[in-house]
Amino acid sequence: MLYIIGLGLGNEKDITVRGLEAVKNCDKIYLESYTSILQCSKEDLETFYLKKIILADRNMSEQGFETILNEAKVKDVAFLVVGDPFSATTHSTIYKEAIDEKVVVEVINNASILTAVGRVGLELYKYGKTTSIPFVDNVANLETPYNVLKENQSIGLHTLFLLDLKPPSEFMTIKEALEILLKIESVKLQEVISADTLVVGCARLGSDNMIKSGKLKEVKEYDFGKAPFCLIIPAKMHFVEEEMVEMWS
Amino acid sequence: MLYIIGLGLGNEKDITVRGLEAVKNCDKIYLESYTSILQCSKEDLETFYLKKIILADRNMSEQGFETILNEAKVKDVAFLVVGDPFSATTHSTIYKEAIDEKVVVEVINNASILTAVGRVGLELYKYGKTTSIPFVDNVANLETPYNVLKENQSIGLHTLFLLDLKPPSEFMTIKEALEILLKIESVKLQEVISADTLVVGCARLGSDNMIKSGKLKEVKEYDFGKAPFCLIIPAKMHFVEEEMVEMWS
Repeated sequence: MLYIIGLGLGNEKDITVRGLEAVKNCDKIYLESYTSILQCSKEDLETFYLKKIILADRNMSEQGFETILNEAKVKDVAFLVVGDPFSATTHSTIYKEAIDEKVVVEVINNASILTAVGRVGLELYKYGKTTSIPFVDNVANLETPYNVLKENQSIGLHTLFLLDLKPPSEFMTIKEALEILLKIESVKLQEVISADTLVVGCARLGSDNMIKSGKLKEVKEYDFGKAPFCLIIPAKMHFVEEEMVEMWS
Repeated sequence: MLYIIGLGLGNEKDITVRGLEAVKNCDKIYLESYTSILQCSKEDLETFYLKKIILADRNMSEQGFETILNEAKVKDVAFLVVGDPFSATTHSTIYKEAIDEKVVVEVINNASILTAVGRVGLELYKYGKTTSIPFVDNVANLETPYNVLKENQSIGLHTLFLLDLKPPSEFMTIKEALEILLKIESVKLQEVISADTLVVGCARLGSDNMIKSGKLKEVKEYDFGKAPFCLIIPAKMHFVEEEMVEMWS
């Protein structure tokens, strides 16, 4: 049997009771280690579970997932995912592959960055498409995050940007992300974003939560500390939303 | 101190380890009982926590929240919420009130219906605005869910509809929701939805997960069993999304 288990966003204690019981019963435990990070180490998890954990990097989870599925046919295997299992597309693929191969699979949900941003105070219902800002060599070729922002704005929806990361050490900062967006603006000139745009920068949501709102030029200079980071550009706000966003300024 | 604790979507075991530790240490425990339901009873929670729980209805949580805040100034109080604390606007208000009143507050995140829909296989990043279909006396006056669907479709985003509920016994069914949308279409005639539209009905996501995709006229007749329910109308899909949605037909 295969358990796909969300670990939430903080440390070893953010797993659910159901998830912890499953981990304790599993013969083999993999930890997906390339789409996000926790605020604790693999060793902290191992100590808490009293189990060994095998790190699954992008290669292993995408191409070599066959091995995990074959193991799950004969024993109980846990595949641990930071956040909620379905917040990244990759994990949907794994889930479908398991079903296609007739492996019994149980998914254990948990907190995701997509809802932890609720703390900021902008209504979750009013977010539009989520977009990523990737590390690129040539920003001039990068249009997607800018286009998504523009489209969301066109129907009054807030935009969440997830910032690229290559664990364990490379994390795009909020400053870098904002500079990329300004750079795209300087090429496309569609008045989607400027140094005076209201933005909200966030670090470690669902854990110790650093949130800072203000004009782009101010938030850009703020020190958010450790990763992971995300960025929000609000659309038109209800006054209750305005009060909440103001609280973080 | 005030703990606002998400319980996730299933039963008593879907609380996080961090959440459970907080509950065990609290002097008083309230359960918000009007925006969603778990698949277990208040008594199941009490047995699991070995604590008494006070039900907070809409009146108490919105108007009478003052009492809870005053208690939280002198003892440890838990406010339990089904799903994730910030998936409903009300809870943002409570969070802000606590901060304004200088009550120390800790939020413990958990799974939300907004990400549990990821199981369906449509990319979470590509959902637009979420909308509710409320119980109304006169459907002719109800436009919002229809307008939101139209707007989301205009920029290629999937739409999640949350169906109204008045616990413990009134739950709008998927059939009722689809009939309401068709009814609005019959008045507005903007070709947003028809009996042949592809829809996905879901029940008890994050728990035992019943999912059924197909033409509106087929899904409408399907028996989804117990609440809570939600409904998804996909926009243009990537072929991986198509395969996943097809799997539930």
